[in-house]
Amino acid sequence: MSDYVYGRNSFFEALANGRIIKAYVLDDSRIKDAGISYKIVDRHKLDNMCKGKNHQGYVAEVKDFELSKVSDMIKDKDGLIVMLDGLEDVHNLGAIIRTAECAGVDGIIYKSHNAVKVNDTVAKVASGALEYVKVAEVTNLVSTIKDLKKKGYWIVGSDGSASQMYDELDYDMNTVLIIGSEGRGMSRLVKEECDFIVKLPMYGKVSSLNASVAAGILIYNILQKRDK
Amino acid sequence: MSDYVYGRNSFFEALANGRIIKAYVLDDSRIKDAGISYKIVDRHKLDNMCKGKNHQGYVAEVKDFELSKVSDMIKDKDGLIVMLDGLEDVHNLGAIIRTAECAGVDGIIYKSHNAVKVNDTVAKVASGALEYVKVAEVTNLVSTIKDLKKKGYWIVGSDGSASQMYDELDYDMNTVLIIGSEGRGMSRLVKEECDFIVKLPMYGKVSSLNASVAAGILIYNILQKRDK
Repeated sequence: MSDYVYGRNSFFEALANGRIIKAYVLDDSRIKDAGISYKIVDRHKLDNMCKGKNHQGYVAEVKDFELSKVSDMIKDKDGLIVMLDGLEDVHNLGAIIRTAECAGVDGIIYKSHNAVKVNDTVAKVASGALEYVKVAEVTNLVSTIKDLKKKGYWIVGSDGSASQMYDELDYDMNTVLIIGSEGRGMSRLVKEECDFIVKLPMYGKVSSLNASVAAGILIYNILQKRDK
Repeated sequence: MSDYVYGRNSFFEALANGRIIKAYVLDDSRIKDAGISYKIVDRHKLDNMCKGKNHQGYVAEVKDFELSKVSDMIKDKDGLIVMLDGLEDVHNLGAIIRTAECAGVDGIIYKSHNAVKVNDTVAKVASGALEYVKVAEVTNLVSTIKDLKKKGYWIVGSDGSASQMYDELDYDMNTVLIIGSEGRGMSRLVKEECDFIVKLPMYGKVSSLNASVAAGILIYNILQKRDK
């Protein structure tokens, strides 16, 4: 089976990673020496292939995105895994993957049912980061959490009802950071597994940040604390 | 002139702020006692009004969004203004407005030409935050910066080429935080006006964060530093 990527960033990242099976481009000047199979097509053809999404002149049929295993993300020290509990928006998934890659996070875990998954929109929003971040789908978040605890990880969830601020922990531990869904936050069973629950301060009248923005603040705060 | 908002959050925020001229709903159970003019319509009518966007059963004709003046954002102490230099994506603008509102930022400034502006998509992404954040459009960012400097503000830009890390400043000053455009960052003339240029650490192979995620990390870091 294969999939398609579109847009300049995703295209050239896929190219760099040897994932392109066949490319479709308006102009071959940047790819003719790349040693890949390609076809020059017109804009109308690309528009049709992408169903109107923004291809920027580059579309490619690519090998399936390779998922990782949770066991590949385990570290002895300063581990940081991001777990998504019911995220619903592909743009948020893409932005979180991009942030995770920039921050050097060890991997992202989400549930194989009932949640957004990596696809071409996610790849596009992630601006190529999907090629470099380990992503694992698991059938059960709670049992994955229990396994990670046995391997020395501490579980940090974020929730507006927490009493502890996000910057009160020093994160000097292997950490699983849990990001809840956009509307409902963490599920009850996942929340019960948390060793720490933290919150971001809110000074306005709107109750919550965008999920990918919150993830970015939480992830970079962990790096900052560990850097001290 | 008037505009339309759609989606539950935006609708009820507009309602709370007295901006609704006329509402169009599938079901009036939540608004029949609100004292506004409304009409019960079918899903097809709402779909047409929104051109297929997600209205969640609620659409309203609203008064124009009221822009603020830069002079309304000025504070004596701990001021924080976010200036957008050429942002291109409405989703980023909406997410930044939402973050700014959660963080209690004094206002957002952008250029009236050549940049995204507040509209119904932005209002939707901002999840109602647009009602509570001061937003000013200016014709010239550089002259606005010069004015803000005279009023005691320090200008902090973010750029990947900076030598100073974002968390090395204590932000114990009235601050204008500048967020550059998604592709090109800050413009040269704006960059030249910066008193400080800071960067976020990047540990991956992808060179930059999503603009709204970067803005969130920078804004919350300023709050964190001031809180100490």
